[in-house]
Amino acid sequence: MTHRFSRRIEHVPPSFLREVFNLLDDPNLISFAAGLPNPNLFPTDAFAQAAADTLKESAGTALQYGATEGLRELREIVAQSYKVKDNIDIDPSQVLVTNGSQQGLDLLGKVLINDGDVVATENPTYLAAIQAFSLFQPRFVGVHLAEDGLDSSALAQVVAEEAPTLLYTIPNFQNPTGITYSNEARRRVVEVLHDTETMLVEDDPYGEIRFEGTRQTPFAKYTDRAVLLGSFSKIVAPGLRLGWIIARDTSLYERLKVAKQATDLHTSTFSQHVMYRYYRDNDTQAHVETIALHYKQQKDAMIASLTEHLPEAKYTNPEGGMFLWVTLPETIDTGKLFPEAVKEGVAFVPGESFFSGEKKKNTMRLNFTNATPEQIQEGVQRLARAVARYEQ
Amino acid sequence: MTHRFSRRIEHVPPSFLREVFNLLDDPNLISFAAGLPNPNLFPTDAFAQAAADTLKESAGTALQYGATEGLRELREIVAQSYKVKDNIDIDPSQVLVTNGSQQGLDLLGKVLINDGDVVATENPTYLAAIQAFSLFQPRFVGVHLAEDGLDSSALAQVVAEEAPTLLYTIPNFQNPTGITYSNEARRRVVEVLHDTETMLVEDDPYGEIRFEGTRQTPFAKYTDRAVLLGSFSKIVAPGLRLGWIIARDTSLYERLKVAKQATDLHTSTFSQHVMYRYYRDNDTQAHVETIALHYKQQKDAMIASLTEHLPEAKYTNPEGGMFLWVTLPETIDTGKLFPEAVKEGVAFVPGESFFSGEKKKNTMRLNFTNATPEQIQEGVQRLARAVARYEQ
Repeated sequence: MTHRFSRRIEHVPPSFLREVFNLLDDPNLISFAAGLPNPNLFPTDAFAQAAADTLKESAGTALQYGATEGLRELREIVAQSYKVKDNIDIDPSQVLVTNGSQQGLDLLGKVLINDGDVVATENPTYLAAIQAFSLFQPRFVGVHLAEDGLDSSALAQVVAEEAPTLLYTIPNFQNPTGITYSNEARRRVVEVLHDTETMLVEDDPYGEIRFEGTRQTPFAKYTDRAVLLGSFSKIVAPGLRLGWIIARDTSLYERLKVAKQATDLHTSTFSQHVMYRYYRDNDTQAHVETIALHYKQQKDAMIASLTEHLPEAKYTNPEGGMFLWVTLPETIDTGKLFPEAVKEGVAFVPGESFFSGEKKKNTMRLNFTNATPEQIQEGVQRLARAVARYEQ
Repeated sequence: MTHRFSRRIEHVPPSFLREVFNLLDDPNLISFAAGLPNPNLFPTDAFAQAAADTLKESAGTALQYGATEGLRELREIVAQSYKVKDNIDIDPSQVLVTNGSQQGLDLLGKVLINDGDVVATENPTYLAAIQAFSLFQPRFVGVHLAEDGLDSSALAQVVAEEAPTLLYTIPNFQNPTGITYSNEARRRVVEVLHDTETMLVEDDPYGEIRFEGTRQTPFAKYTDRAVLLGSFSKIVAPGLRLGWIIARDTSLYERLKVAKQATDLHTSTFSQHVMYRYYRDNDTQAHVETIALHYKQQKDAMIASLTEHLPEAKYTNPEGGMFLWVTLPETIDTGKLFPEAVKEGVAFVPGESFFSGEKKKNTMRLNFTNATPEQIQEGVQRLARAVARYEQ
């Protein structure tokens, strides 16, 4: 029995984490590989109360079909949050609720990308964004990511030569590098894209998890053309699959809504009602600060361990988010290091899979949010042993 | 500010219900238009218990990221249900959990349809399936739907001439007509598709809501090549957005999983945990029988009212599901009747929007599940008044 499959599905690159899934199943393994929030920080009790209230007071609507664009009250909460954080005026009618911000990428791909279009990304970038966009068969062009954000002269060249349909960015605590764009770097990106047809996409799942430094400004503050993706996954819990996309251009918003309806009608009304009540009835800002405080301790433990046990490595020191990025001596291929590290009892993601242009094989992504400071110390020591064995 | 949009998004036909959304907002209107389950039959208390137990006993996993293919325990429940209902052996590894069965259509489109491929459908068919597949730019060919199922000689001609990539069917209580295929008609469809490359897709959101007659057999019983879509929307509640797709061919299943991961990583783990516990801890079969009993009373009221007040109409008399299909005298265009009917205080969906080939403008879809027998009586009288005025 043979099937014909679409050309697009054969274009999707494999997921490293899925491929090594069985390897990661060992309970003795310390994993810095996946990007899991710390489940000990899920607001379980508050959430249980919100779920109970929802089913007591509004089961008839919370379990029924709902509007494609999402629950009005939740969209108001999202819109208002940008007023508070950044003094940006977002109308709830510009907010579309999605199944996590990952779905925002699928909808943008559906609405914007024709087969053969160019999609510009940071290099390295978030692998699952490449996967989402790949279904619409663009050509990817990576733009060098400098320490304070996207290299604007490299970007200018790509825009001039390739006229990308969209530029995909993660300006806060970037995945995989942990890098945050300065406000100056953000303004330069907006200037480069001014008067072009390139859509600026800001994916911001981590922005609120800042534990040091000063919040930088979303692109949407500098230009109406920026689309903004957000998520409750890191500030509440990812299992709900609740995110949003903000599009201030009506013609874009309407098309995203058509795509959302065709894709799955709408996001779970039950989840949206529970999330709305959770926000309405709790000090969610205090909760986010608690998360940030823990993640800072975890990051500090990782930085200290790297300094002590892997002095030959360079690494970013992120002011927030969930990941840091390690660059080992150029003699080390982290793809080959990986099985050695797993033998030592520690896992990471080799950097290679995040590059869409030039690949730096001596890099790796480390997640610090899903292990205790003690586990982090032990895990980095295991990693150092694997590196030492590799170098022999 | 102008944007370039993809060709595919401009291909999606508009939704009649969305276009008339504001008209339907009048609380005095009796609506037979949308396909809403009766919210009075949602198992709210059992669901509240399942949600409370989930957050008490497994919050750490129920709120965390989960497997792309869905919660193992829920997939076991789905697989087992086909053993009980139809004596079909489905392995849980062949079940992929989706955001409602609508998402199954998006994933099938992604994995199977190339631009310009032919998609064969029943004529008339479910509009939102046309919308979902449209994003992948096929050409639609409608096949005549007879009273006992798809016209197999018409299908044979389409298969011979057009070699469709897939055939999309709703064999139980079809949307919009309420028609159910006999087992003979099912076998004929399978025979016609034997040894072709056409994938047989069975969308079965209503199959368990049977209130009369005998359950007919899924295509999957007759052939391994049939993909089966199911949903908890009609047997539990649609607001959860929980459905499934069953693909027994490993190469197809793996590609659907890749598409699912790229699209939104996975379906809400929280919703899946709650649904699993609801099934584990309750007599869900008794609940489905309660729904069917109510819907039968509602359908009977609609049939009785149509017989009394619209003797010039023909209509299907479905043995289950949520809709029946009315054919008025050929002089009546239900698209033009619609505003008159709304003035009388009743709404329906004009039949025209369900046709992908020849359109019969004197048809309409009536939903009977979201109004009481008394409202149904009153609504049909209003409809009869609108028809009488139209005929003058």
